Amino acid sequence: MPGFLILNGPNLNLLGTRQPEVYGRTTLADVEDMCRAHAKEIGVEVEFAQSNHEGALIDAIHGTRGRLDGLILNAGAYTHTSVALMDAISSAEIPAIELHLSNVHAREEFRHTSYIARVAVGVICGFGARGYTLAMDAMKSHLDSLS
Amino acid sequence: MPGFLILNGPNLNLLGTRQPEVYGRTTLADVEDMCRAHAKEIGVEVEFAQSNHEGALIDAIHGTRGRLDGLILNAGAYTHTSVALMDAISSAEIPAIELHLSNVHAREEFRHTSYIARVAVGVICGFGARGYTLAMDAMKSHLDSLS
Amino acid sequence: MPGFLILNGPNLNLLGTRQPEVYGRTTLADVEDMCRAHAKEIGVEVEFAQSNHEGALIDAIHGTRGRLDGLILNAGAYTHTSVALMDAISSAEIPAIELHLSNVHAREEFRHTSYIARVAVGVICGFGARGYTLAMDAMKSHLDSLS
Amino acid sequence: MPGFLILNGPNLNLLGTRQPEVYGRTTLADVEDMCRAHAKEIGVEVEFAQSNHEGALIDAIHGTRGRLDGLILNAGAYTHTSVALMDAISSAEIPAIELHLSNVHAREEFRHTSYIARVAVGVICGFGARGYTLAMDAMKSHLDSLS
Amino acid sequence: MPGFLILNGPNLNLLGTRQPEVYGRTTLADVEDMCRAHAKEIGVEVEFAQSNHEGALIDAIHGTRGRLDGLILNAGAYTHTSVALMDAISSAEIPAIELHLSNVHAREEFRHTSYIARVAVGVICGFGARGYTLAMDAMKSHLDSLS
Amino acid sequence: MPGFLILNGPNLNLLGTRQPEVYGRTTLADVEDMCRAHAKEIGVEVEFAQSNHEGALIDAIHGTRGRLDGLILNAGAYTHTSVALMDAISSAEIPAIELHLSNVHAREEFRHTSYIARVAVGVICGFGARGYTLAMDAMKSHLDSLS
Amino acid sequence: MPGFLILNGPNLNLLGTRQPEVYGRTTLADVEDMCRAHAKEIGVEVEFAQSNHEGALIDAIHGTRGRLDGLILNAGAYTHTSVALMDAISSAEIPAIELHLSNVHAREEFRHTSYIARVAVGVICGFGARGYTLAMDAMKSHLDSLS
Amino acid sequence: MPGFLILNGPNLNLLGTRQPEVYGRTTLADVEDMCRAHAKEIGVEVEFAQSNHEGALIDAIHGTRGRLDGLILNAGAYTHTSVALMDAISSAEIPAIELHLSNVHAREEFRHTSYIARVAVGVICGFGARGYTLAMDAMKSHLDSLS
Amino acid sequence: MPGFLILNGPNLNLLGTRQPEVYGRTTLADVEDMCRAHAKEIGVEVEFAQSNHEGALIDAIHGTRGRLDGLILNAGAYTHTSVALMDAISSAEIPAIELHLSNVHAREEFRHTSYIARVAVGVICGFGARGYTLAMDAMKSHLDSLS
Amino acid sequence: MPGFLILNGPNLNLLGTRQPEVYGRTTLADVEDMCRAHAKEIGVEVEFAQSNHEGALIDAIHGTRGRLDGLILNAGAYTHTSVALMDAISSAEIPAIELHLSNVHAREEFRHTSYIARVAVGVICGFGARGYTLAMDAMKSHLDSLS
Amino acid sequence: MPGFLILNGPNLNLLGTRQPEVYGRTTLADVEDMCRAHAKEIGVEVEFAQSNHEGALIDAIHGTRGRLDGLILNAGAYTHTSVALMDAISSAEIPAIELHLSNVHAREEFRHTSYIARVAVGVICGFGARGYTLAMDAMKSHLDSLS
Amino acid sequence: MPGFLILNGPNLNLLGTRQPEVYGRTTLADVEDMCRAHAKEIGVEVEFAQSNHEGALIDAIHGTRGRLDGLILNAGAYTHTSVALMDAISSAEIPAIELHLSNVHAREEFRHTSYIARVAVGVICGFGARGYTLAMDAMKSHLDSLS
Repeated sequence: MPGFLILNGPNLNLLGTRQPEVYGRTTLADVEDMCRAHAKEIGVEVEFAQSNHEGALIDAIHGTRGRLDGLILNAGAYTHTSVALMDAISSAEIPAIELHLSNVHAREEFRHTSYIARVAVGVICGFGARGYTLAMDAMKSHLDSLS
Repeated sequence: MPGFLILNGPNLNLLGTRQPEVYGRTTLADVEDMCRAHAKEIGVEVEFAQSNHEGALIDAIHGTRGRLDGLILNAGAYTHTSVALMDAISSAEIPAIELHLSNVHAREEFRHTSYIARVAVGVICGFGARGYTLAMDAMKSHLDSLS
Repeated sequence: MPGFLILNGPNLNLLGTRQPEVYGRTTLADVEDMCRAHAKEIGVEVEFAQSNHEGALIDAIHGTRGRLDGLILNAGAYTHTSVALMDAISSAEIPAIELHLSNVHAREEFRHTSYIARVAVGVICGFGARGYTLAMDAMKSHLDSLS
Repeated sequence: MPGFLILNGPNLNLLGTRQPEVYGRTTLADVEDMCRAHAKEIGVEVEFAQSNHEGALIDAIHGTRGRLDGLILNAGAYTHTSVALMDAISSAEIPAIELHLSNVHAREEFRHTSYIARVAVGVICGFGARGYTLAMDAMKSHLDSLS
Repeated sequence: MPGFLILNGPNLNLLGTRQPEVYGRTTLADVEDMCRAHAKEIGVEVEFAQSNHEGALIDAIHGTRGRLDGLILNAGAYTHTSVALMDAISSAEIPAIELHLSNVHAREEFRHTSYIARVAVGVICGFGARGYTLAMDAMKSHLDSLS
Repeated sequence: MPGFLILNGPNLNLLGTRQPEVYGRTTLADVEDMCRAHAKEIGVEVEFAQSNHEGALIDAIHGTRGRLDGLILNAGAYTHTSVALMDAISSAEIPAIELHLSNVHAREEFRHTSYIARVAVGVICGFGARGYTLAMDAMKSHLDSLS
Repeated sequence: MPGFLILNGPNLNLLGTRQPEVYGRTTLADVEDMCRAHAKEIGVEVEFAQSNHEGALIDAIHGTRGRLDGLILNAGAYTHTSVALMDAISSAEIPAIELHLSNVHAREEFRHTSYIARVAVGVICGFGARGYTLAMDAMKSHLDSLS
Repeated sequence: MPGFLILNGPNLNLLGTRQPEVYGRTTLADVEDMCRAHAKEIGVEVEFAQSNHEGALIDAIHGTRGRLDGLILNAGAYTHTSVALMDAISSAEIPAIELHLSNVHAREEFRHTSYIARVAVGVICGFGARGYTLAMDAMKSHLDSLS
Repeated sequence: MPGFLILNGPNLNLLGTRQPEVYGRTTLADVEDMCRAHAKEIGVEVEFAQSNHEGALIDAIHGTRGRLDGLILNAGAYTHTSVALMDAISSAEIPAIELHLSNVHAREEFRHTSYIARVAVGVICGFGARGYTLAMDAMKSHLDSLS
Repeated sequence: MPGFLILNGPNLNLLGTRQPEVYGRTTLADVEDMCRAHAKEIGVEVEFAQSNHEGALIDAIHGTRGRLDGLILNAGAYTHTSVALMDAISSAEIPAIELHLSNVHAREEFRHTSYIARVAVGVICGFGARGYTLAMDAMKSHLDSLS
Repeated sequence: MPGFLILNGPNLNLLGTRQPEVYGRTTLADVEDMCRAHAKEIGVEVEFAQSNHEGALIDAIHGTRGRLDGLILNAGAYTHTSVALMDAISSAEIPAIELHLSNVHAREEFRHTSYIARVAVGVICGFGARGYTLAMDAMKSHLDSLS
Repeated sequence: MPGFLILNGPNLNLLGTRQPEVYGRTTLADVEDMCRAHAKEIGVEVEFAQSNHEGALIDAIHGTRGRLDGLILNAGAYTHTSVALMDAISSAEIPAIELHLSNVHAREEFRHTSYIARVAVGVICGFGARGYTLAMDAMKSHLDSLS
């Protein structure tokens, strides 16, 4: 059974409490519950981690090496500024999907670019919490297409 | 039952025959079959259109007004140059998802930007033909969240 | 009696129905009626055309050669991206006025520039449907000043 | 009866004497006569002012507050460099039309941008002295549409 | 006997009538006659097409697949703005030569860049109508060098 | 007792009457009263000047030489465009504080840069009329730290 | 009694020991003493934190939610590179003042921009350690103006 | 005998007193004396004017029309920001030399560009007060070469 | 009989030995033989020169004045950096064709621009050694069209 | 005996396991062994640290103050984005050498720039693990040259 | 008696024969005669050199060290592209004046910038051959001001 | 025994005499002596060349083909402007190390970029004359790692 890390970056611990007009009212715990339920349905295992620390996110990505099969990464604001996370994905040699709750292309110009997307399998953004289960489906399809 | 237009832009008529290392071997007819099957499963109706003409794509988007509920648009190369398609989506007042088969962020710099994404609900890219059914799921969730 | 082509580009067929807070509620048919009435008053003949196809707009501009005396062009979103329309005006050797319903300079940055304006006699923007009759007056004055 | 200020900026005092191939041979006095005549026809009152001093133009714009109904501003070269005139229009809360005698988009690149246009109702350029009466018509229509 | 498509884009239907100081007085029919004569001399077959519609040009390029051996493309103003034509050439997997009548590098800055050239075999510009027969020679040599 | 010039630039004469949602309802006279009262409290003398004329502001800055000890300058829109005011401060060799009522960094991009700040002691922005007394405190501290 | 967090970012632990010609000889402990004394005078409570870790600063900002009333943030070099800190302030929904000891506008170009300032109430820079007490005054005024 | 206007812009009234390490200790009166003496030697008449007001400089340039033969303009900081002064020189149709005391190319990047130089006969910079007499010689030569 | 200089710039002496996947295996001597043979066929005289020295290339271009009728210049890497070669062509007043063996538009971004092309009759690139004889044909046609 | 800190940044813990075609197969432990051996040879002491956390790297740099003599820093991806590490080196007042295993100038454009290099003694890149001992030699020479 | 090198760069050997509408009809020999005559008048010695080779110009500049007192350099097109000539002037530690015959600021954008000007005493441009004697006067004044 | 060319570019002939605060007092002859001594120690042969001529440097690089094993190139100012030297290294197919005496990243912005580095094995800068022997060690290691 393939295993995924669902990794959330800075400020996502406050999900559901901050700027609900942008991000909705679902909390990160709600998201994890949704993902666990969906994991059962589609036959995958999921782990979760969240940190506001760029270094901790890198450590978590490294921790997937040889142990997990897919990374679903909502790197929040680090998406637009972190070359180190991009390198961490390359280093860990794990397929990654970049995820955003909001449609970053409809927000400020500096949220339109991503270092991470350059080494990702694909990108999903704009679908709120539902994006996580879409990303799980997408990762499963991706892994199936490789085997 | 909600109705979706799955609209494909320039060069997608050749899908499955061109650059298979980037886009895979699935043809546009295969994609449409997949989408029809998936539509039944999730309880939506789908229409399809493809054109290499920017104006024809605009006409098709206009044609959804008051008749369909969601637009899934793979505008191909027009994604990066067409303000008129962006305006067409605003004019038609239909929720739209921007879709790409390949991960455009891992390709040339000029494919990283999109006018269409600014008025879309969200973006899905990098998952090949599977992206179409993910987009259908995403659009259905989006419409559900509105009602 | 001088003859004008009043040519409208992408999405203007939906005028009066889309984003009324930006463009007002007057339809394209209303605009044409206003223009016909004004044409009588100032002693000019008017023809109308609209297309969402860039190529069709080019064809229409070519069609004025040796037959009409002035072009009033609301090229919509093509204004900001089309070098081909700019070349079409040069090729047709017809005096042209660039027209916009809204004040494009008060909208997104990418609407501030125009290829067409470089070869136009002048530009009128921001006065809604009234801009068409102003443009007719301006074109008439321009032609009078040449003779 | 609505009142308009027709305000001209730097170097326009020399109108009709400088670079006639660009600006024509009509003097500023001629323009004012044309505007006065036109004002009678369309039932508005007009005041005139010209200065080469950016500060004097700001003062003149302030002077319209609560006294006049529309501003027709040919800010000349200040159009492209003055944020202060833009702020003056916002401060005076008077509808403004940006006017240029020549088609600035057919001249040097640095004349293609305008701070003033961002807060104007609309822009008219390229029609020589005739642009002033067009602007008067446009302002009248604009005020009518508000009432 | 190898077969070539000689494809002309926007405004080239007016060749010989517009801006003769830039493009000369030879019409498109004259060019086609020259090319037909030259084709006989060098032992190739030629087809011709012209359209002002970007989509029609894409369709024409697709139509060469598995049927013709070389594409000589004067995409006119679309050269500088069309990613879709670039993709069409990649999709059709046909060797292409980019052609311009005038030396685009001696004209406006925005005519110095080309998306199409990135996927072309080579570029020829500045030699007027003669460029077409040079391009035919070049394409023939290119095909010979492959076999 | 140290003497300060509190110098206000373009459009600040309308303070309290224009765009109150951005700048509040306090008038410039109110600000001057607040500053006079505060000057007594902290033991400094204050002079006031306001002009919409860049040249008049330069003259006023020159007028402080050898007579006053600190300059508190709200240059309004000139902040972002005037090299001459920057040079005037260098020429007058007087310590200057740049002041803005609103947080210019939360407004348009072109208000984020300042020539004046390059030669100022420091910058205070975003605190409305209260910024003036903060600037007086800051200038006093600065002068104390020098002696 | 309102409570403030005075939060210092990278390298500020070395304050008073590093580059004294830029930052002075006051240590961070001295600054905290000054702030505590000033807090008593103006009737506020203050907490202090410093970290060289961007993630730890985000955590600290989150920790103010529903507990403190104002944030005074000297984010040091993170000011110019961190979108995540900007988002943290939005997430925590706490009024923030951006503070710098030196006048960043008189230093390298890359220190002139700030993500944080876009969501701050205001900015104070250039007044050395005195800036902290000015910021406390400014925050207190700001809170008073809201109540 | 040809007549020249030697016109000095913002902050040059303080010449000899400000930043002597950049501009030297010669005052503007000294410069004028040097110029008057040199005028006698080379047989020209000179007038002088200085203003910190951009508008006053424009007025002065206009005032030379049909009365004087050459303009020697040290526009100070307005050199780099004023399109209006550039237009004033074109309007007045008087040959102009742009002059700077310091070598502006060895100073900040924003002092390297000039609108005025685009319409000037030539530029002289870096020779301190001596530049004025060099400019007088250069203007005299220029006028001689025209006659 | 018209005479041409075929001038090759830096690194072209190694033609046929360096990066054959980009430039092919034909040596410069082979190219010269091809050109001599072709010259006989089309009735022109050819001279050859090659240098790695920008100055020597300039000297060679000067040396054509009043002696030769056309210049075919493969300036190699100097194409993208040398304004002096551009000026040399203008100075020598000789028609020039810019030539490249490879399609420079399919290589690094900095090879897409050319100073030389601005003063050339036309450009030919991407056809390997065959480009030289195409350029000879093109130059002959060009000279014929002038006479 | 001088003491050096050899400090490695993000992803370097995976050295020898990730992207061996770029970075080789030597592990970080191997590097440290090489450095220890080399340290004995050249008579210096070495300490090692590695972290994926920017803040931890800053802390480590601070920790060298007054205790060690040289810093050899491979900041990995932080090199291109971290102003805070640049400031940390200035704060710690320790001579630093910037080191990269790969030749960053032969990789993506965004890896060509470095904040750290601006305050470093020098830079060494492209020599794989051997770069560390070269850097030790370089630092020793540098320290010798100071004493 | 001070000695000057008057050094001319690429294409200036053709002076008086090329583009006379830009550079006039005076030859380089004429210029040298003028300079020799002027040298006698003002009591200086002059040497001349011209080369189209950047390296030869560097050699010539080096050759002035400890032997001559001033350099008057018309580097032609190298002005805008050569960092090496800039470094040569710094290396030779000789005062230099940058000279251009034409007003480079009224020509193409890429002629507006100069590396050389950054290390020159000053710049003179736009006065044709007369510029050389003005530069000699300027250099003499400069040397006098130093002694 | 491997053979190296140590090649020095423009202005390095003056090493030890020019700007000693930047480059030190060691002459090029001293450097060569150091390198010869070091060559003996590490068992390599060294040749030296220096030229101020870009073309001569290209010739020298070509001259290493099939004869020498490594190139150590201090291209001085040509580093930042010469594409031709970059191509010469590719053409000669010799491993190259880019060397600078000073830390170019701590100098002007235009010295931060290098064409040569894109095709070099690595870069060493900032270590003065010592850099040459470090580069020799680095080249030897590089060659050893290949064999």
